[in-house]
Parts: sequence; C-alpha cells; structure tokens
Amino acid sequence: MELYSGYINQLIEELAALPGIGNKSAQRLAFHLINMPQDKVNRLAKVMMEAKANICYCKECYTLTDREICPVCANRNRNHKLIMVVENTRDLAAYEKTQKYDGVYHVLHGAISPMLGIGPGDIKLKELMERLSGDVEEVIIATNSSLEGETTAMYIGKLIKPTGIKVTRIASGVPVGGDLEYIDEVTLLRALEGRTEI
Amino acid sequence: MELYSGYINQLIEELAALPGIGNKSAQRLAFHLINMPQDKVNRLAKVMMEAKANICYCKECYTLTDREICPVCANRNRNHKLIMVVENTRDLAAYEKTQKYDGVYHVLHGAISPMLGIGPGDIKLKELMERLSGDVEEVIIATNSSLEGETTAMYIGKLIKPTGIKVTRIASGVPVGGDLEYIDEVTLLRALEGRTEI
Repeated sequence: MELYSGYINQLIEELAALPGIGNKSAQRLAFHLINMPQDKVNRLAKVMMEAKANICYCKECYTLTDREICPVCANRNRNHKLIMVVENTRDLAAYEKTQKYDGVYHVLHGAISPMLGIGPGDIKLKELMERLSGDVEEVIIATNSSLEGETTAMYIGKLIKPTGIKVTRIASGVPVGGDLEYIDEVTLLRALEGRTEI
Repeated sequence: MELYSGYINQLIEELAALPGIGNKSAQRLAFHLINMPQDKVNRLAKVMMEAKANICYCKECYTLTDREICPVCANRNRNHKLIMVVENTRDLAAYEKTQKYDGVYHVLHGAISPMLGIGPGDIKLKELMERLSGDVEEVIIATNSSLEGETTAMYIGKLIKPTGIKVTRIASGVPVGGDLEYIDEVTLLRALEGRTEI
C-alpha cells in the first residue's frame, strides 16, 4: 500500500531531489506546502519559474543576473583592470558584502575536480582568458580553500603567468575571531607560512 | 546595492520562509533551481500547486488524502472499532509502515501547546469525539512523547474516560537498538516504570 496519496509522494520525490534535502526533510516540506494557503503555494511556484526564466549570465563576468550586463560590470566607477575570480555568484555576493572591493569579478561556475569529472573546459575559464586580452592589471584568484579550489587556483595561475599579468591568491589563515585551539593543522601551517610583518 | 538580482532575492526570501530552511540553505537552493533546466523547474512548480489543490482531509479520520475517504478508512478489512489518535499524517504513515496495525486512525493535525497558543479547539478533537458516538471499542493515543504530545494525550484521556470507551497510550521506553548509555534519564525511568514480565 502506498503510504501517502500519489500527489504527496510525487511532491516528496521532487523535493528530495534538491540539494541538502533528505527524505525526511522532503516529507516535512511537502506537508508544510500542503498546509499553506493555495495563493502562497502559487506565489512560490511562480517566483521559482520566473527566477529561472529571467536569470541569465552577465556577458562580461558571467555572474547570474537579470540584465545583459550585471550592476557591478556596468558600474564605471569600479576598477575594470582588477578582476577577482570566484567559483560562483554566492562567493561574489560574499565579497560584495564587504563593500571594500572596487574591482570587477569573473564567475567560473564551478571548480576543477577530477573526482567529479569537472575539467577546465567545464568552467568559464576560456571566457576569463578572453577577457585578459583587454586592459587588465591584476587577477585575484578567490576560489575556495578546498582541494578543488586550490587545484583551480594553481591551474589558472599557470595559465595566466605567460601573459605577464599579475596573478594573486587571497590569503589563507586563521579566520578573524577564530580560536587557535579549534583550528585544523593545515590552516595553522598556512597561517604561519603567510605571516606578515606588523 | 542589492547583492543579487530582484528575482533571485525574491526566490531566496520565499524559500527561507519554509520550515527548516535557513538563509544560507535558501541561497543554495535558489541557485540550484536557477541552474536546473527550465522544464524541471516548471515540473516542480506544477507538482507543488497540484498537490496543494488536490489534497483534502479524509471525511472520517482527517488524514491528508486525494479522495473523500482515505484508503485506510475505506478498507472494510480493517478494524473500525479501534482508533489510533496521531498528531499528523506523517505519524500515521510511520505506523502504517509497520504493516501490523489493523485498526483505523484519527489525525489531530497538531497537539495542544499553551506555549504556541494551540488549544483543544485548534486540533481535530471535536471531530474525534463525534466519531466516538459510533461503535468504538478502544482509542489508542499515539501522540508524540513530547511535552505537547503528553499534554494532548492526558487531555484526550480525561475527555474520553466518562464515555466508558477504553483509552490506551503507546508505551514509552528505550528504542529498539538503543544504547542505554546514550538515553536520557526520563526515558530510562519511563522504561523502568513500564517494565513488563518476560
């Protein structure tokens, strides 16, 4: 016997396919949705479809935006000779929140991962190299400090070096407010290696 | 400056309003949805709206179903004189999975919680009492073993007692496979109180 009605089962199945949502969470979400007023469910569904339909890549930096050129790239007050390479739009937003970076970005939409079969051709790397033919002074590589992020950073570094453009990597070390006691050895060693004079 | 496009912000906001989804998860989900093919997003949206539109309460036990009478209540082979009271449809499904219970259910859709302002009038309690005027031999109270569940169980017990119908409560104790070492004192005491002869 099926435990739930076909409609509920189908909804649970669709929700469970989303990242970070297991079967139990999917059940909880499904019943929450069913108990929501119909107009709220319809609004959520509409917002989902609209976001999908209206979002595209910025023609310059490849971030997700609803315009041809994203607000950062369209801003003439920003330093277009300074490009920060990030893995995705969320990382771009994280740096934008600091309100201190005045360069532009390049969004790779992924990182090189031989384990997952993601090669240099699967991320927006060709597009980055094309941008470098313009007037660029420095490329800051701000991929994650994970195995994939580091691999990607090294790969991009090697690729850009011959062009003579300055390539830098964001610092890796103890996070601000971090307690040394709880920080892993690799990070501690990185912090030591990257020490600067005070 | 807005970090994301309006469409993305709106989607994140809607998703973050769902239970168990914080702001970070909502961002992750939103970008996942945007990266999904349009037809898959449309299907998810359709399934959501359809489930909401087609699901109603069973006229007998008030579980969520797509029929007037749910498959359990419609099954004449089940013992309709035995009613198990549960908090929600998921709890009903949990007992159905055991495949050993042959009575019917009554779904309260909540539990009494003075903290959250949920009183006896806010759950399907009146509906339960109406069912008891029929031919019922036993009511098994299977609300959760939480403060709210216990309160509800006690309340229902007191309500039914005068009718002369047998009222029972599912046992509380050490879960099967549970390691005594990791079980809280209240549960251990409950298990002791509820001990049975072997």
